[in-house]
Amino acid sequence: MFSDLWVEEKISECYGMRFKVEKVLFSKKSPFQTVDIVETKGHGRMLLNDGLVMLSERDEFIYHEMITHVPLFLHPNPKKVLVIGGGDGGTAREVIRHKSVQKCVMVEIDQVVVNACREFIPQTASCLDDPKIILIIEDGVKYVHETKEKFDVIIVDSTDPIGPAQPLFGIEFYRDIFSCLTEDGIVVSQGESPIYHVEMQNKLMSIINQVFPISSIYHFTNLTYPGGRWCFTYAAKTIKPNQIDFTKVLNQKIECQYYNAEVHQAAFVLPEFMKKNLSPWIKV
Amino acid sequence: MFSDLWVEEKISECYGMRFKVEKVLFSKKSPFQTVDIVETKGHGRMLLNDGLVMLSERDEFIYHEMITHVPLFLHPNPKKVLVIGGGDGGTAREVIRHKSVQKCVMVEIDQVVVNACREFIPQTASCLDDPKIILIIEDGVKYVHETKEKFDVIIVDSTDPIGPAQPLFGIEFYRDIFSCLTEDGIVVSQGESPIYHVEMQNKLMSIINQVFPISSIYHFTNLTYPGGRWCFTYAAKTIKPNQIDFTKVLNQKIECQYYNAEVHQAAFVLPEFMKKNLSPWIKV
Repeated sequence: MFSDLWVEEKISECYGMRFKVEKVLFSKKSPFQTVDIVETKGHGRMLLNDGLVMLSERDEFIYHEMITHVPLFLHPNPKKVLVIGGGDGGTAREVIRHKSVQKCVMVEIDQVVVNACREFIPQTASCLDDPKIILIIEDGVKYVHETKEKFDVIIVDSTDPIGPAQPLFGIEFYRDIFSCLTEDGIVVSQGESPIYHVEMQNKLMSIINQVFPISSIYHFTNLTYPGGRWCFTYAAKTIKPNQIDFTKVLNQKIECQYYNAEVHQAAFVLPEFMKKNLSPWIKV
Repeated sequence: MFSDLWVEEKISECYGMRFKVEKVLFSKKSPFQTVDIVETKGHGRMLLNDGLVMLSERDEFIYHEMITHVPLFLHPNPKKVLVIGGGDGGTAREVIRHKSVQKCVMVEIDQVVVNACREFIPQTASCLDDPKIILIIEDGVKYVHETKEKFDVIIVDSTDPIGPAQPLFGIEFYRDIFSCLTEDGIVVSQGESPIYHVEMQNKLMSIINQVFPISSIYHFTNLTYPGGRWCFTYAAKTIKPNQIDFTKVLNQKIECQYYNAEVHQAAFVLPEFMKKNLSPWIKV
């Protein structure tokens, strides 16, 4: 029917990223968003929520390693980890590679994302059968407000702050996160583009700066997010982001394709334009 | 005439980057390539050679700062600099910000690129009137083969290895570069994408590894090159890429938007997949 099908993500009506589609594997409107999975040419299978690229099989390792291993290697003994969002399973997959982790609770709002990824993207979702992963289909904002559990690391693996993820970019949410963290707790969050989302990034940084004694930001590059460089915010009660133990990283023998201890340190080094924008919110 | 005009750069028929065009300012077929300058929405003016994005006014500072300041801050006293290519003037503009530089020879093959940028992109090209810059319209390969001049730093600011830039990716060219460098000389070159151009990057790295005692690679991210992360190769006779003097950088007071001494060091830190591909060619 379609001889030349592409998916396209547009930024501010001035920039578009297009990926060649071989086949549409899944497309459904959930109560929260439109969920599509397509087979691309050259980038493997791709998940899109409301038309925005969430992951491709070709480069998802970068996002998932960097959102996970930075906090988990920093924490001396992460036993309990909470993932908010991350319905594709990629973050949880990396979390349970850490031997100290006894339990990874994953709170995803949208069952449709989970089901679709289980069926069509086993590369990220097959880990969801692991007994260490407790999957809860619920609003993450409600969960952190109500739970009495404490976590060593919380990972906010959210979509952009439109649609269902909007409350995940508010101060009340981060106050609840603070309460759910153990005394050495760390939270990292999907932190947007330092060029295309300056205002949102500043807002998120000012929030974690208000709530946590330690706040910072780090970056990575992948193929499928606009603008090349993308960020995660970092907030912690006691652990500074550069306290990385090179020997611990090597000894754990978690084979990565992107992360290593030097990459960890380099990820917190900011180019001048980011320093200028963000230094008011950085406390390390 | 065009109500919704975009320029698009395609990679391997699987990925496209599109920029919204407000107005076509210049379009001409030179003896070497098609040269277009467009006014975009959101990214300022943009230069395209044979349909590939060379620069946008919005993000050219990143490329030009990183190709220039890394070698020029490493060299203890760069007096004579040679730029091969770089017809837009952005690299030469950054070179002459270094007070030690007495002369910057720029050898560009295509007069049409220079003229078009002088007229439509003064942000990069207005520096070409500076008396320290000697512009020579000639084939860079021929120039380095024939010249008797010696340079402290050579910057190969080339297009991709298709069209006129192809010989700039050959070993003979790098042997001539070696001969044109003073005894502490450094050469950096446009080094392609570590994901989309693995083969070409390996070829270029193996060449500089054969010709120079010190060879390495470093990276940056901008908005307009596909895949987010992009590279420059680094080769030198005596100076290691991490011998950066933080005090010297600060004292020179060259105000940058991207480069700083920490960014310099971080740029040489490679993610695991790059280390795996490239470590055979790295000697530092």
